[in-house]
Amino acid sequence: MDNFIFRNPTRIIFGKGSIAKLSKYVPKKAKVLVLFGGGSIKTNGVYDQVMQALKKHEVLEFGGIEANPDYDTLLKAIKLVKGEKVDFLLAVGGGSVIDGTKFISLAAANKVKDPWDILTHINDLKIKKAIPFGTVLTLPATGSEMNPNSVISRRATQEKMAFSHPKVYPKFSVLDPETTYSLPASQVRNGIVDAFVHIMEQYMTYPVGAIVQDRQAEAILLALVELAPKAMQDPPDYEGRANYMWAATNALNKLICQGVPQDWTTHNIGHELTAFYGLAHAETLAVVLPYVLWYKRDLKGDKLVQYGKRVWNGTANGKRARMSEAIEKTAAFFQGLGMPTTLTAYGIDPDEAALKVSQRFAERGTVLGEHNDIKPEDVANILRLSR
Amino acid sequence: MDNFIFRNPTRIIFGKGSIAKLSKYVPKKAKVLVLFGGGSIKTNGVYDQVMQALKKHEVLEFGGIEANPDYDTLLKAIKLVKGEKVDFLLAVGGGSVIDGTKFISLAAANKVKDPWDILTHINDLKIKKAIPFGTVLTLPATGSEMNPNSVISRRATQEKMAFSHPKVYPKFSVLDPETTYSLPASQVRNGIVDAFVHIMEQYMTYPVGAIVQDRQAEAILLALVELAPKAMQDPPDYEGRANYMWAATNALNKLICQGVPQDWTTHNIGHELTAFYGLAHAETLAVVLPYVLWYKRDLKGDKLVQYGKRVWNGTANGKRARMSEAIEKTAAFFQGLGMPTTLTAYGIDPDEAALKVSQRFAERGTVLGEHNDIKPEDVANILRLSR
Repeated sequence: MDNFIFRNPTRIIFGKGSIAKLSKYVPKKAKVLVLFGGGSIKTNGVYDQVMQALKKHEVLEFGGIEANPDYDTLLKAIKLVKGEKVDFLLAVGGGSVIDGTKFISLAAANKVKDPWDILTHINDLKIKKAIPFGTVLTLPATGSEMNPNSVISRRATQEKMAFSHPKVYPKFSVLDPETTYSLPASQVRNGIVDAFVHIMEQYMTYPVGAIVQDRQAEAILLALVELAPKAMQDPPDYEGRANYMWAATNALNKLICQGVPQDWTTHNIGHELTAFYGLAHAETLAVVLPYVLWYKRDLKGDKLVQYGKRVWNGTANGKRARMSEAIEKTAAFFQGLGMPTTLTAYGIDPDEAALKVSQRFAERGTVLGEHNDIKPEDVANILRLSR
Repeated sequence: MDNFIFRNPTRIIFGKGSIAKLSKYVPKKAKVLVLFGGGSIKTNGVYDQVMQALKKHEVLEFGGIEANPDYDTLLKAIKLVKGEKVDFLLAVGGGSVIDGTKFISLAAANKVKDPWDILTHINDLKIKKAIPFGTVLTLPATGSEMNPNSVISRRATQEKMAFSHPKVYPKFSVLDPETTYSLPASQVRNGIVDAFVHIMEQYMTYPVGAIVQDRQAEAILLALVELAPKAMQDPPDYEGRANYMWAATNALNKLICQGVPQDWTTHNIGHELTAFYGLAHAETLAVVLPYVLWYKRDLKGDKLVQYGKRVWNGTANGKRARMSEAIEKTAAFFQGLGMPTTLTAYGIDPDEAALKVSQRFAERGTVLGEHNDIKPEDVANILRLSR
C-alpha cells in the first residue's frame, strides 16, 4: 500500500424530499447563481423545488450548460458571476453542470491570464480560493458531486480536458433519488457504465497488497451489478435509484483510489472519442475498456483473475481463461444494459479513430496507464480492436 | 434506504514516515498541547518523532491518560488547557487518548455547568465550538481518529458513557503503520475484534435494501478476516499493519452506517462490563456479540444468512442452520485470534454480571437494539448465555 493523504469535506444530503433542506446549507446572505443545463429541470419539477427552497435568498440563473460543458458557454457564466458579484454557486444537474460550475468557481475567483490554463497546467497557477458552491444532483454518473474533478470541452478546437483541485470539492450535494425518475433509460444505463468504469480505472491495475481498498472497490462493483436491473426498472423503483445514486457517488469520491496505482487510460481515450465523434462519455468508455483490458492483459493478469473471481464468480479453467472470462463478463454486462461495446456499432471506423486519437496524443506527448507504458501507437492498437 | 446527512472532514495522512509531515497541519502559531497515555510512546520512538516534527511550535505536554480515559484525569487536562490558553490539541495514542482529547476539546471551549453533562445530555447543551485537534494514531481499533465519537469512564462511580458531536471530528489524523510495531499481540488482536464488532453493530440488523452500504460493510469484514493473520505476524509485516490500520478506521468513520438501522447493543453491554469488571473493551465485545446474535436470531435472521454467505462462504443446509453457522464462524474467528468468547473464561459469573448490568440499565431506563426491544431482562438473558 502506498502512502496517501485523503480528505473529502463534501456534505451529502441524501434521500427523497432533501431539496427542501437546501436553504439550511446555502449561506443566508449569499447572492446565489443557480446553474443548470438544457432545461429538463424545468419540466421535471426540480427547478421549482430548488426555487421554492431558496425563496428567501437572492437568486440569479444561468441555464444552457451543455452535456460535455463548453468552454465558451462557461466564459459567459464567469462574466456574469464577476459582474454581479455572485458569492455562491448552486449547480443543479448532472456531471456536466457540476463540472462546469467547478471551472467557473475557480476562474471567477482567481486572477488567471487565460482561463484555459486551468485545464492545461493548473499546478503552475496560483489558485488561492474558489467561489463556494453546492450541487443538486439529477443524473448520477460522474461522482462530481463528491470529488474535486472537472472535465471541460472546447468545441471550437475539438478538445476535452480535465482538471482537479482540492478547492472545488462541493460544500454540499443534495442527492434525491426521485430527481432521477424522469431520466430516459439510456441515461441511467450510461450512469451505471460510467460509475463501473470509474471503479475499474482505480482498481484494475496490479496488486499492491491493499486488501481494504480492493474489497471496497469490489463492493461497489458488486453493488452496481446487483442494482443495475432495479435501477433500470420502469416505472422507477426508489430503492433501485437510491442505490444507483449512492453507488455512483462512492465510485469516484477518492476513497478507493487511496494508496493504490490508477490507470485512467480508458477515460483519456474516451475523452478524445467524445471530442472527435460526439459519443456520450459512457458510450466511449464501453467501446474502449474491454480492449484496454485485453491489450494489457499480461500486466493486469493477477488483478483480472482477482476481479473475475470476486465480482463475477469466475469459474474458467486456468489463469488465461480466467482473464478472458473476466473481460468477457465485463463487456457482456455493458451489452446487457443495451450498451454497445464496439466503435463499429456507432458507424465509426476503428482505423480512422486509431489514427486521429493517436496523432493527438503524439502531438501532446501523452503516455497512459499505471506503468506509463501506453504510447500513442498502443492507443491506436487498442482502438483498432474495437470492432 | 433511509435518508441521511453525511460529512466527514477529517484529513488522513497515511503511511510510513508520515509523522514528519505534522508541522504542515498544525497551525504555525498555535500553542500546542500534546496528550498521551502511559508513556509507551516514549519508548517506541513516536514521542521523539512528534517532538522533532513540532520543534518550531510552542509545545506543552499532558501524559497519563489511561486506557478507558478517566474523567478525573481529563478534568486536570481541561484546567491546564484553560490556564495555559492552549489553542491546539494533539492526541498521540490510541482510542483512549483521542476520546479523552475530544472531551477536553469540548469541555475547555464551551461554558458548561458540569462537564459530565457532555456525557449525559450533550444535545441539551449549547456546544458552539471546540478546541481544534489532530491525532497521531498508535493503536488502530476504535476509529476515533476519523469519527466524532468519544467514550469516557468515571472510575469514582463505575460509569462508562459515550457522546458524539460533529465539532469533534479530528482536523487531521496521522496513520503510520510502523507506530504499531511495538504493540503487544493482545492489543492488535483487540483492535481487530473491536473493528469487526463496530461493523457488525452497523450492519447486523435487518435488510433495508441498502445494497451499497451492505457491500461496503461486508468489504471491511472480509478485509479484516483476510488481514488478521498478516496483522498479527511477528516480526511485524508492513502491509499487514497498514491494512489493519486502514480497516479499523473505515470500520467506524460513519460511512457504512448511513441510511441503515444500527444496533450497538453489544457495545452498550460491553461498556458496563468494563466499568464493573475492568475487561478491555474488545474483550467485552467478544463475550457479548455472539449471544446478542443468538438471542435476537429470529429478527436478525435474514441479515445473518446474508452475512454468513457473503463473509463466511456459508454452506449449511437451510435458513436456521445458516444462521447458527454465521454466529459460530464469528465466535470461531475471535477464538482463532486467541480471544475468549465467554464471561466464564475471565472468571466472571454470568449470573452476577447479568444482575449487575441489567439493574443499571433498569435504573437508567435503557432499552437497546435496532427495534428498541432489548429491555434490561433481555440484557440479563443475553449475559447468562455467555458461559
